[in-house]
Amino acid sequence: MRVVEVALGERSYPIYIGEGLLARADLFARHLPGPEVFVVSDERVAPLYLETLRTALPGRRLDTLVVPAGEAHKTLATVERIFDALLGAGHGRTTTLVALGGGVVGDLTGFAAACYQRGVRFLQVPTTLLAQVDSSVGGKTGVNHPLGKNMIGAFHQPAAVVADLATLATLPEREYRAGLAEVVKYGLIADAHFYRWLGERLEGLKGRDPGILEEVVARCCRIKAEVVARDEREAGLRAILNLGHTFGHAIEALQDYRGWLHGEAVAVGLVLAAELSARLGRIPKAAVEELEQLLAALGLPTRLPKGLAAEEMLAAMGRDKKVVAGSLRLVLLDGLGRAEVTDRYPRDLLADLLAEQCAAGADPASA
Amino acid sequence: MRVVEVALGERSYPIYIGEGLLARADLFARHLPGPEVFVVSDERVAPLYLETLRTALPGRRLDTLVVPAGEAHKTLATVERIFDALLGAGHGRTTTLVALGGGVVGDLTGFAAACYQRGVRFLQVPTTLLAQVDSSVGGKTGVNHPLGKNMIGAFHQPAAVVADLATLATLPEREYRAGLAEVVKYGLIADAHFYRWLGERLEGLKGRDPGILEEVVARCCRIKAEVVARDEREAGLRAILNLGHTFGHAIEALQDYRGWLHGEAVAVGLVLAAELSARLGRIPKAAVEELEQLLAALGLPTRLPKGLAAEEMLAAMGRDKKVVAGSLRLVLLDGLGRAEVTDRYPRDLLADLLAEQCAAGADPASA
Repeated sequence: MRVVEVALGERSYPIYIGEGLLARADLFARHLPGPEVFVVSDERVAPLYLETLRTALPGRRLDTLVVPAGEAHKTLATVERIFDALLGAGHGRTTTLVALGGGVVGDLTGFAAACYQRGVRFLQVPTTLLAQVDSSVGGKTGVNHPLGKNMIGAFHQPAAVVADLATLATLPEREYRAGLAEVVKYGLIADAHFYRWLGERLEGLKGRDPGILEEVVARCCRIKAEVVARDEREAGLRAILNLGHTFGHAIEALQDYRGWLHGEAVAVGLVLAAELSARLGRIPKAAVEELEQLLAALGLPTRLPKGLAAEEMLAAMGRDKKVVAGSLRLVLLDGLGRAEVTDRYPRDLLADLLAEQCAAGADPASA
Repeated sequence: MRVVEVALGERSYPIYIGEGLLARADLFARHLPGPEVFVVSDERVAPLYLETLRTALPGRRLDTLVVPAGEAHKTLATVERIFDALLGAGHGRTTTLVALGGGVVGDLTGFAAACYQRGVRFLQVPTTLLAQVDSSVGGKTGVNHPLGKNMIGAFHQPAAVVADLATLATLPEREYRAGLAEVVKYGLIADAHFYRWLGERLEGLKGRDPGILEEVVARCCRIKAEVVARDEREAGLRAILNLGHTFGHAIEALQDYRGWLHGEAVAVGLVLAAELSARLGRIPKAAVEELEQLLAALGLPTRLPKGLAAEEMLAAMGRDKKVVAGSLRLVLLDGLGRAEVTDRYPRDLLADLLAEQCAAGADPASA
């Protein structure tokens, strides 16, 4: 087992990474001071892992709620169901919520924990690659609004993250690949060496080699932990973790959160952010092509989905949380392994790029 | 104008107290760094004061939302309307929300500000006595759940509180009196001298004497600011501000938030907490009678409303946020001007008191 620490003073917590951790009662016991536990999971994950987790939480009053799976259910209405269940079962301020599932379950449960009785403890138990390398770490919680992704939420750090690598074996292929988009992102923004290392291990990555996965999850968590420790509430630096996400969130919102997976949308967003960076002379054109090849080799889309208009994309991007005083800031690359948030880019360049790409249409790889 | 500072490090803020502050553009300008403002008010307050406030916020993009008045609308559904309006009008993370109204508007708006884009600035502009002396200060925000008052919420401090005493002149008599219950509470928990001072100024209090009101609001805010500065997130001490509230919240929830006003329910709660304290020998019996006389003289109820069963009251109180590991803690007096949160009281004593009081039925003064 590897342990990565997120250093946030009194809000510090460990990320445990390893095989079989779901059954480690000793690990959970360390982080459950109260007598009550409330586990939230979804329809896909609960049948696979809820019983295992239950046996790792002995001697406590345990209630559970299983919510529908998928980004379309990351709404205030689902959070309200969690509140109803908590109050109905009489959970007090000393309860601990446990999120067992992917990014949607983690974001929903974390936000419920942030607001229930003005804040209770919670644990993240991510079971997808995307959640293990990204969404379970750092305390961003929340839900979507029809007009924008993650528009309602809170910063609320978990008490611990327990990432059982064994759960990745049961991930549907498409979900697994979507998680790889965030992995590539970490290389791009913070670690050129890791980015190259990924490119040299395509077979192992696609084959879910356990040793490679352990290294991948630990490396990504270390990068995220370091960024979050330096800028917990995204005053500046932390926004680099959103490379490609302004594009990606716009795609997801325009598809009513029922189209591409988050990671798929982010993959295309990475390409667009890289392309814009190249047109500004920040990275060589060849780096964009290399990125497209890597993403395609990992089975990820590199072109916008069919049927989006450039104007819709621009409007949806204009509702991004990185808009400051009406001006949309973007995360752009600054060489490989470095990124910055900036509003110093010609607006025409962005509009032209979107016009071209929207006209070019869908990536055949992601029909 | 008086200024009371709430000392919370980087989250510190001033409470401005005086006549005519709603029109003070200079005051608002200090606390509105961004170009956008979003004012939330209710149907009763907006017709009286929204225009005045609007003229005090020149040169900014200003949007408004008027919500229905009353505790029954302090729900997640109303907060969702605020999110819809903010996103519909394109407000970004640099916006400032302004709560113009009583406790309900302040709690709703503050919670919306806590969650919108994971947290934006907000100003409290309280227009009721209850909001000026209590709910606008200290950062407790949130909404009710059918099963319990304020069960969903966040700690989110305002950037400033602007309490215009002139607004108290237009308060309906019943609303005004309800606010006096919280005023009496401050004397009971923290300031015996102030408690006596109130008893000697019944006519001035009932007649809304401006000089007396200024002193009352400033004194209560100073007490609250001091308690909040010592325990922002209610790890312990802060709970004394909830004297009488466990009883009061249970009454409100059992009436579906459509019966008594919060302050009325708190008035009876104060009597019950004092009575329990007296039966435990913590205060003399005569102090309870004195309290009942003071509340009655101010036009407030001192007996439970008709038709409540002791078992329902106990069950509703059992869902209080002060329940720790299944045990209900209560705020009890410890002499006049001192209170503590404790679970050291015989449960029978509470059950007997509620059985008696529920049988005794309604206070004729509050039919």
